[in-house]
Amino acid sequence: LVGEGYLEARPRSGLFVVEGLVKHATAAPPPKTTAPFEAPAKRAAKLLSELPFRHSRPDVRLFPLQSWARTHSRCLRAHGRALLSYLPSRTLGLPLLQESLARYLRESRGVHCRASQIAITTGSQQALYVLAHLLGTAGTRSLLEDPGYGLARRAFESTPTELVPVPVDLQGAVVPPGASAPVAAIYLTPSRQFPTGASMPVARRLQWIEYAARTNAWIIEDDYDSEFRYGHAPLPCLQSLDKNGRVIYVGTMSKVLFPALRIGYAVLPEELIAGFAALREAVDDHGPVLDQLTLAEFITTGDFYRHVKRCRKAYAERQKAFLETAAREQLPFDFPHTDGGMNLAGFLNNGMDDQVVHEALFQRGIDAPPLSRYSMQARLNGLMFGFTAHTPAVIRAGLRHVGEVIRTLA
Amino acid sequence: LVGEGYLEARPRSGLFVVEGLVKHATAAPPPKTTAPFEAPAKRAAKLLSELPFRHSRPDVRLFPLQSWARTHSRCLRAHGRALLSYLPSRTLGLPLLQESLARYLRESRGVHCRASQIAITTGSQQALYVLAHLLGTAGTRSLLEDPGYGLARRAFESTPTELVPVPVDLQGAVVPPGASAPVAAIYLTPSRQFPTGASMPVARRLQWIEYAARTNAWIIEDDYDSEFRYGHAPLPCLQSLDKNGRVIYVGTMSKVLFPALRIGYAVLPEELIAGFAALREAVDDHGPVLDQLTLAEFITTGDFYRHVKRCRKAYAERQKAFLETAAREQLPFDFPHTDGGMNLAGFLNNGMDDQVVHEALFQRGIDAPPLSRYSMQARLNGLMFGFTAHTPAVIRAGLRHVGEVIRTLA
Repeated sequence: LVGEGYLEARPRSGLFVVEGLVKHATAAPPPKTTAPFEAPAKRAAKLLSELPFRHSRPDVRLFPLQSWARTHSRCLRAHGRALLSYLPSRTLGLPLLQESLARYLRESRGVHCRASQIAITTGSQQALYVLAHLLGTAGTRSLLEDPGYGLARRAFESTPTELVPVPVDLQGAVVPPGASAPVAAIYLTPSRQFPTGASMPVARRLQWIEYAARTNAWIIEDDYDSEFRYGHAPLPCLQSLDKNGRVIYVGTMSKVLFPALRIGYAVLPEELIAGFAALREAVDDHGPVLDQLTLAEFITTGDFYRHVKRCRKAYAERQKAFLETAAREQLPFDFPHTDGGMNLAGFLNNGMDDQVVHEALFQRGIDAPPLSRYSMQARLNGLMFGFTAHTPAVIRAGLRHVGEVIRTLA
Repeated sequence: LVGEGYLEARPRSGLFVVEGLVKHATAAPPPKTTAPFEAPAKRAAKLLSELPFRHSRPDVRLFPLQSWARTHSRCLRAHGRALLSYLPSRTLGLPLLQESLARYLRESRGVHCRASQIAITTGSQQALYVLAHLLGTAGTRSLLEDPGYGLARRAFESTPTELVPVPVDLQGAVVPPGASAPVAAIYLTPSRQFPTGASMPVARRLQWIEYAARTNAWIIEDDYDSEFRYGHAPLPCLQSLDKNGRVIYVGTMSKVLFPALRIGYAVLPEELIAGFAALREAVDDHGPVLDQLTLAEFITTGDFYRHVKRCRKAYAERQKAFLETAAREQLPFDFPHTDGGMNLAGFLNNGMDDQVVHEALFQRGIDAPPLSRYSMQARLNGLMFGFTAHTPAVIRAGLRHVGEVIRTLA
């Protein structure tokens, strides 16, 4: 458990984060992240700076970079120039990676799949985009969680489908009552609703499966961080419960490995494979090959599993440190969903407006987006805190800082 | 000129290609390349097999793989974990690569651009797809060369725009006569018309620029292989001639480096940058980061330029060997466009049907697609021969084989 990446990371992490925190806390407001281009001088700092509580960020200091680099070199040596050509008819990805992923998904997440059903994509975003365009054709209706994941909505907004918001309660997305007109696609995050963090109980999952069968809908199950569940048994994924073959399982390597890798995947029901491949070919032909092979090898050697295990342990400690400190500091938030993930949705319980609190924190170097940002019609009031990118020491210091800022607002 | 990659490649190339050729020539028909999945056993062979005269294939044996791998490792060591995170607001690419590319495009291809105008994409296909969707909205008309590049057409076919075919003559795409209704986008390959290989003279280029200004159209200039021009001075790209800022210049690394890299780019006029970035974010957020940095460094060190020069020399020799052999074997083709590129369009001059000739050759291990495959309304009769992926010895053997097959057909 104290593997290469972890040991490497420790010595520098204290220094790194305390520096960053002090700088952001005392200096001018941090630069906005919306400017598409920056002067060269600002870049190095920007690449390294990760504001406390920015959401959904893995701690890349835990990543076994040496081992990844060695695997990459070994793949190049072993396969050489054969890797450099086009991959004709490899639109869905390198077969070796399809196989490693299928094994991982079957064994670790209970997904029912064969390798040939797996489409490797440029991040899970591409999977969502292609699925949205494949299913969300003119004249259709598609259901999206409200509040929900912004880039999934963006993917559907770029299609002619009509978007129908689905409310979310403490058990995740609520199944619409009564009979229903046909539905093209339903976008769900059952393992951990984004952004509230609710885990959907099995009974609710079965209702959704029944609803999809009744409305002839495809469910897109976005299982973006279910590897990280702390002290609770894993829940079966929706795809594994569905006997009708109506669930498309989507996942990403951005959380368990590193975001800049840009590898995601979709497990496609048989009848969607050809359509997905045709559309993806028009979008970008196929993805980069060398990283696909490196990842296949990384899974096969077990490095992948060791890394996930190491992260799960570290993130569990960080979540514990977060929740203990939030309680000790008497922060005005309720955290109803704490069984796993990379973020904690804190609902404001002192009547303050989440936009106001967010703005005040952001000016002082803390990035915790307001929950209202993720809503279409829903009215939520709270902040989302990512806790995985920083050590417990930084989390404690950051939350004390949050407490101070909120007291000045009160 | 006899650099690392070239010397490495030579000793094995004779063996490699003769083996491949004999196998394909005597055994059963080669496997179709349309099956999306294959049994593991077939893969290694498939990855290495490149049928003679398959079009637009660089010779990856010339690529300085060791030097690329060393650059990749050096980038990882120098930037380490800072490279692994998300690139917030880097939807258009790593600034370092935007800068190296801008320098290269200005100096080597005369493109007018600043780094901030360059969008790095997953292959040029993604650039074409995003541009098609950005410009080809409902109610618009878009002009495409006929015959033309199939995947460009596929990108436009996935939008609601109306496709209007533009005929092609010996000077490339023909400017429509007379006044014209507004046009959204015009897809052109002026440096080397795909698939005929015609280079557009400057006078015709200026007519297109005038036409675009008059119809308020954007021209997409796909300059996919203009680095390879043999024994002729380079022509200025359309983008460099246009004073109105209506040309979007698109290029790719698939031909000059290697296809599996999946890096392309578009040089965007200022007013299209924001729209392109927004759409690209929905498509796949951003591309993989490590290869972008490696490429930036590869350009900066000069390895890139050395490789292009080495390929240009090798490909010129191969084109010469091809044309000499075709003449000596009295093959029934006219090759009107021979000033550069990776392919030669051979127009059948003996009355045979290109589909029939293509089929007969494909059954005997020669892949030279019929020109009719690239047409919407145009009636062309000939084959496209790629000559860059094989040595002169293989080209000569392959063409003798082509002669034999055609004689059996006659």
